[in-house]
Amino acid sequence: MSYDSNNPFAKILRGELPCVKVAEDDATWAIMDLMPQADGHVLILPKEPAVEIFELSDAATVACMRMTQRIAIAVRESLQPDGVFIGQFNGHAAGQTVGHVHFHVIPRWEGVALRLHAREVAEAATLEAFAKRIRERLV
Amino acid sequence: MSYDSNNPFAKILRGELPCVKVAEDDATWAIMDLMPQADGHVLILPKEPAVEIFELSDAATVACMRMTQRIAIAVRESLQPDGVFIGQFNGHAAGQTVGHVHFHVIPRWEGVALRLHAREVAEAATLEAFAKRIRERLV
Repeated sequence: MSYDSNNPFAKILRGELPCVKVAEDDATWAIMDLMPQADGHVLILPKEPAVEIFELSDAATVACMRMTQRIAIAVRESLQPDGVFIGQFNGHAAGQTVGHVHFHVIPRWEGVALRLHAREVAEAATLEAFAKRIRERLV
Repeated sequence: MSYDSNNPFAKILRGELPCVKVAEDDATWAIMDLMPQADGHVLILPKEPAVEIFELSDAATVACMRMTQRIAIAVRESLQPDGVFIGQFNGHAAGQTVGHVHFHVIPRWEGVALRLHAREVAEAATLEAFAKRIRERLV
């Protein structure tokens, strides 16, 4: 699939759409999912444009995983969930909804089902409150 | 959680339990999931003992991601699914069933639901046939 430079994450990375940013490094951004499946749901995006992980460079793949691990640790420390799900979906059949590679970090609590993917937009203030707690534990 | 060196994946890595291996490098093994959620379901295990990704060293985390990407590409090339799901579950609440870090690579086809996790053991010959196809496209 060819990369559409007007996909929502490309626009976020260019500053053309707002987001609640948790962290940034040379190669990646970590942002709060606007339609979280659970409280504290974070997305990790490479700055490099790629639709799926198959086309992502080795350097960007490694950078995404490093940021994903950092975020997972900070999510666990700050929100103390019972578990942490890490997911990376390639293709509609696998649950991908935006055509720019991203990794999900989703806190899980026993007995709490995930909300449906990409359905309900969260309040910016709520997302910012979770982002603040996660940032405070980011190493 | 402390690491139990008698967990099934530790035994597989020591050769005390059988598996259908797809690939190995200095730091990881890729093996067919014995109870696949879809045809061609592969697991990537670090050789380093760690229960969850929080405790996994940076080097082992990066090595897992590199192998995961290689396997995902080979799965796509060999089995031509509509999508590829990559997942890494930490804690029972997130779906983890074995206390040794692992990454799932699961081919997805439109309209085909995942089978339940860790329920039904596949025939070794079936797993070996998928492993062979994936190995042939491994770069």
